[in-house]
Amino acid sequence: MFSLHPQLEKDSVLLGRMALCQVRLSLDANYPWCLLVPERAAITEIHHLNERERHLLMDESCLLAEVMVSLFDPKKINVAALGNMVPQLHVHHIARFEQDAAWPGPVWGKVASKAYESDKLLRRREKLINALAGENFSAAS
Amino acid sequence: MFSLHPQLEKDSVLLGRMALCQVRLSLDANYPWCLLVPERAAITEIHHLNERERHLLMDESCLLAEVMVSLFDPKKINVAALGNMVPQLHVHHIARFEQDAAWPGPVWGKVASKAYESDKLLRRREKLINALAGENFSAAS
Repeated sequence: MFSLHPQLEKDSVLLGRMALCQVRLSLDANYPWCLLVPERAAITEIHHLNERERHLLMDESCLLAEVMVSLFDPKKINVAALGNMVPQLHVHHIARFEQDAAWPGPVWGKVASKAYESDKLLRRREKLINALAGENFSAAS
Repeated sequence: MFSLHPQLEKDSVLLGRMALCQVRLSLDANYPWCLLVPERAAITEIHHLNERERHLLMDESCLLAEVMVSLFDPKKINVAALGNMVPQLHVHHIARFEQDAAWPGPVWGKVASKAYESDKLLRRREKLINALAGENFSAAS
């Protein structure tokens, strides 16, 4: 049975679900940063998914990336499945800007995580949910 | 027309080609580190590929990851498309170990790149080419 890793629970909030993945927003306000977490038990690598699930993950990743581009107009989207510290498969999608705190490096270990002001978090969450809305996405209640 | 970014040319050697991607070996000997580079002109993001190419990229990525697992028996495979510095789309596949130079952090910006001894590079290249050999891979001559 799938259950979300406590560290992912702590570091992000649920936006909603696609066919395969939970879509979550990182609580690090330094960057617009979303996560896809396939709701499959005991999966730590992309290649552990079956072929249908792999293609779903690709579809969901591209949909999420396109929504982030349309909302945030970043210089680059960084997409990464690392998982050295949190083994449960999760795929980072981070909108990057030449003015951001870690540019041009990757975001990990660069600057401390920054908390959102609560109204900014609510607005960003709502904006993402509205932009993701459609037949392939069910918003979290 | 596709032409490889000079920085990727400099930092890696060609192993061969799959249907969509060049498969390359990074010249940083700190980690077994391969790259997939879709041979498509002017593509900087995964979602710039069409649906068929996206699924091919997923298939090729999983095949490469499985080969790296079978050869190197790592603790984790890190898969990432960053491209903040080299915009041409390239997807890193890095075999990670609890004893490696950057564990448990990501590899970028952690320790300086380490040159291969030439016979070690040739052996690793040959090992990868042999393991990738099959109908979906043509080795570089």
